[in-house]
Amino acid sequence: MGLGQDYEALDVETLPARLGGVGAVASRVGADASSWTVREVGDGNLNLVFIVEGPAGKAVVKQALPYVRLVGDSWPLPLYRAFYEYHALVRQAARAPGTVPEVLYFDERQALIAMEYLEPHVILRKRLIAGERVEGLGPFLGCFCARTAFRGSELYMASADKKADVALFAGNVEIPAITEALVFTDPYYDAEMNNHTAGLDPIVAKLRADVALKVKAQRMLQRFASNTETMAHGDLHSGSIMSTLTESRIIDPEFAQYGPMGFDIGMLIANYLMAYFSQPGHRDSDLDAYQEWILTVIEETAAAFDAEFRRLWATERTGMLYPKALFEDQNHDSAPACDAVLAELWQDAWAVCGIEMHRRCLSLAHNADFETIEDEPLRASLEARNLMMGAELVKAADDLAGAKAVCGMARGYNERDFL
Amino acid sequence: MGLGQDYEALDVETLPARLGGVGAVASRVGADASSWTVREVGDGNLNLVFIVEGPAGKAVVKQALPYVRLVGDSWPLPLYRAFYEYHALVRQAARAPGTVPEVLYFDERQALIAMEYLEPHVILRKRLIAGERVEGLGPFLGCFCARTAFRGSELYMASADKKADVALFAGNVEIPAITEALVFTDPYYDAEMNNHTAGLDPIVAKLRADVALKVKAQRMLQRFASNTETMAHGDLHSGSIMSTLTESRIIDPEFAQYGPMGFDIGMLIANYLMAYFSQPGHRDSDLDAYQEWILTVIEETAAAFDAEFRRLWATERTGMLYPKALFEDQNHDSAPACDAVLAELWQDAWAVCGIEMHRRCLSLAHNADFETIEDEPLRASLEARNLMMGAELVKAADDLAGAKAVCGMARGYNERDFL
Repeated sequence: MGLGQDYEALDVETLPARLGGVGAVASRVGADASSWTVREVGDGNLNLVFIVEGPAGKAVVKQALPYVRLVGDSWPLPLYRAFYEYHALVRQAARAPGTVPEVLYFDERQALIAMEYLEPHVILRKRLIAGERVEGLGPFLGCFCARTAFRGSELYMASADKKADVALFAGNVEIPAITEALVFTDPYYDAEMNNHTAGLDPIVAKLRADVALKVKAQRMLQRFASNTETMAHGDLHSGSIMSTLTESRIIDPEFAQYGPMGFDIGMLIANYLMAYFSQPGHRDSDLDAYQEWILTVIEETAAAFDAEFRRLWATERTGMLYPKALFEDQNHDSAPACDAVLAELWQDAWAVCGIEMHRRCLSLAHNADFETIEDEPLRASLEARNLMMGAELVKAADDLAGAKAVCGMARGYNERDFL
Repeated sequence: MGLGQDYEALDVETLPARLGGVGAVASRVGADASSWTVREVGDGNLNLVFIVEGPAGKAVVKQALPYVRLVGDSWPLPLYRAFYEYHALVRQAARAPGTVPEVLYFDERQALIAMEYLEPHVILRKRLIAGERVEGLGPFLGCFCARTAFRGSELYMASADKKADVALFAGNVEIPAITEALVFTDPYYDAEMNNHTAGLDPIVAKLRADVALKVKAQRMLQRFASNTETMAHGDLHSGSIMSTLTESRIIDPEFAQYGPMGFDIGMLIANYLMAYFSQPGHRDSDLDAYQEWILTVIEETAAAFDAEFRRLWATERTGMLYPKALFEDQNHDSAPACDAVLAELWQDAWAVCGIEMHRRCLSLAHNADFETIEDEPLRASLEARNLMMGAELVKAADDLAGAKAVCGMARGYNERDFL
């Protein structure tokens, strides 16, 4: 990879001159780059993001920064993550058409991707904090997770192709290492970059003293770090989804890596659940109904995932795993095999879900669902519900009865006071 | 990799001229290559193997063939497997010193490795068929499996190093593909290259009609093909072990791949069990005592594995998994975590064990333990015990109480008549 040799960060002044000659961008924005207007809109921590506007239309230009912006330039991060983001976007577009922004241009050396501007899409997390309902959200995201999980696995892919892809993505070391540390380990001890809301100390102490919980979390880390079932998005929270009120797209797969088929769906549901638990900090009116809507989205996401996975199992099982030669061709029903695969997939998903609920309140990168609640005692009490339910999910992951049961569990935690 | 461009198979005539100039070989065998004598001794299916002898000593030269010899040249097989064999030997030597032959020289383009000549070592399978006892066998092999499993995993290795190695070995596609098909899938349906002893038909039909068994076997394939816990030898049967009556070495890691930590130990124990069940076809005298000796070796192998794994857990847990920061540094005992890791490792091992017992009687590559029994009805009855126990191991893998219980199970099957 010829990355970074002559890397130079873009800014709003230099962008038109530097990208004006790129046909795919010029044809989207306008042939005369001097007519472009450029805004930097990145609110992430790892990248520059520009909206480029011209007479013909708009485009987004995303460029990786060589460090994590959240902690200054003291935490260097390789530019090659743009290379993986590009490769992930291409694969997601093929496996789940219509779910990700169209890539217009990729420059590996500059670690930049120009892509379709999504309008009037807004980050889903903002809509969930604002109490807005997005139509069709559950089916869309459940389907995305099922298609990328199934079609990126050896249930579907030829093994040689899949192994070559595993080798390619194995080069993405530092980014998954962030997940490994921040998500799976740091929440469970007093790691240097951790922070949590004042008032949560008793809950935090309880979780960190729970050896069985730590063993389960590390077991999930072991599975995450040494499992290559499929190419996961790797960071599928509500900040990686952009929605209008009727449709959505999935962005930012720079944390893509081969991992368990249940990883993305588990992390996604954790983010729904955090939206659910945080709602009392954002509204009084429409509270109960909106919280119930979020639980409906969880159930619909899980149901769509299962239905689409089963559909693909029946119609696209072309890889070496669970081959038809062993089942259908022998007049043996393969449904019990699909049941077993899904059961194990959901065990991973619920464990990841609980861990994600922990790390977003205890580790470095918190989320706006809780962080924007200014009333600290209220925030702590809502986070406590989220943390306690997370612990139950991690420890009971192998024995849960599915999304409906998890939603019932959430209703119970939502009534309780742990502080 | 610059493999095979000018590849030319060695023969006993050309070998001295071609390797005479290689210092590491010449210093082992003798400076004057015209004084060397060369014998081809390969009894394998994939390689040429030469013993080179001269005034200074002996060496072995192993060269990969571009096809599987067992089925003529109709099944081409990439020469790059010598590259992986070399890299596996180097890693095994570092992780379990003294267990593998010393590498003298590696020529990637010629797919050849010159290595230490082991003398008076004989293939372990031959000793087991002959009823010979090898001192210290269980502790030696248990220790090898534990050390390579642990030290090749992220319990020990830095994640970046391990991921780079996963990427390297992900290039070894065709060889693991043989394992994937021949071991995990072909036994369970009427695959083209299968064969089995006349008289076994009712047992074979029973196994192939057992949907639960097939689901479990495919689940294990899923885990084998998408799990990178450690670098496994990948083919650790009694033909990959050379022993005197007091010491052993492990050879032929060309099937090396990243896989579950329980893979090698499971396949090894299957081969012990096949030696056990086949004994009535090889001797009358010393039968009971020799069979019991084999079971003792199984128990000692498992005990040595567990003891060494626990020792390394306590003393060399330097990787990111189950870090001391979460356990010892918090005055929390990490033994429950080690118990959980070992429990899951053994679940994989017993499933692999049962599958290996099946494939060696039902798929393409049988083993001499059974194949050399000329009395076909006797052979079938012994293979039937082996097959039926294999099915129990696969289906009960998650609930077995350990090697002692498995040995007890073997005694039971050894008394039964299934035909």
